[in-house]
Amino acid sequence: MIVRDFNDIVKNDPSRVVTDAKWTSVRMLLANDGMGFSFHLTFLEAGSEHTFEYKNHFESVYCIQGKGSITDLATNETHEIKPGVMYALNEHDRHVLRAEEELVMACVFNPPVTGTEVHRADGSYAAAEDLADA
Amino acid sequence: MIVRDFNDIVKNDPSRVVTDAKWTSVRMLLANDGMGFSFHLTFLEAGSEHTFEYKNHFESVYCIQGKGSITDLATNETHEIKPGVMYALNEHDRHVLRAEEELVMACVFNPPVTGTEVHRADGSYAAAEDLADA
Repeated sequence: MIVRDFNDIVKNDPSRVVTDAKWTSVRMLLANDGMGFSFHLTFLEAGSEHTFEYKNHFESVYCIQGKGSITDLATNETHEIKPGVMYALNEHDRHVLRAEEELVMACVFNPPVTGTEVHRADGSYAAAEDLADA
Repeated sequence: MIVRDFNDIVKNDPSRVVTDAKWTSVRMLLANDGMGFSFHLTFLEAGSEHTFEYKNHFESVYCIQGKGSITDLATNETHEIKPGVMYALNEHDRHVLRAEEELVMACVFNPPVTGTEVHRADGSYAAAEDLADA
């Protein structure tokens, strides 16, 4: 059994805390935990806007706190994000996520993130095999 | 892209809301969503105690709200559960979960739950193939 405390990770394990342009992700579970998915708490700054496209991953995102919106760039549909709303990128959907207030999101990735990815210019994470080649 | 609101599901989609002895699980994502995992919000009643063992699944559980404890029955170690604490049953660990206050947990299952499982007497969910045979 693995037991981890978000607050301990933030204080003591900087390798699991990744910050990029106006977002921070705390990786509670990564690929090497052997669960077959990774689990992250992600914080998006109030007023920020992000274009993401996980070409190599499925991702589900559950809003714990905050207020914002998501636009599906394939359909141009926009959905409100508020506590209790979840979106799942079952078609590797390219999307824009906006935080009106800081968003606190519980994110699941399949395949699991290894912890060494950063968002590339196209908004994706590399596949693990591409990273191994890099 | 799938977008679902917890509050809409609770009001309008009883097939996704499962209640058993002193716990309720709202299934935001199930196997047929094709994500490779399922994602549930689970509520455990204040004062309740549960023995679970997911012989056929890996499960991670992140505490959003509440207070309790978990005991790993293999080692007899007990860990405090509070907001920000996650446990992951990477060895299908048999465990006792206690809610001192109502616990609100974000749960991920791999393989994904199909939605037709109930906890069996041994605290497990059947594997999907066993359900198909049942």
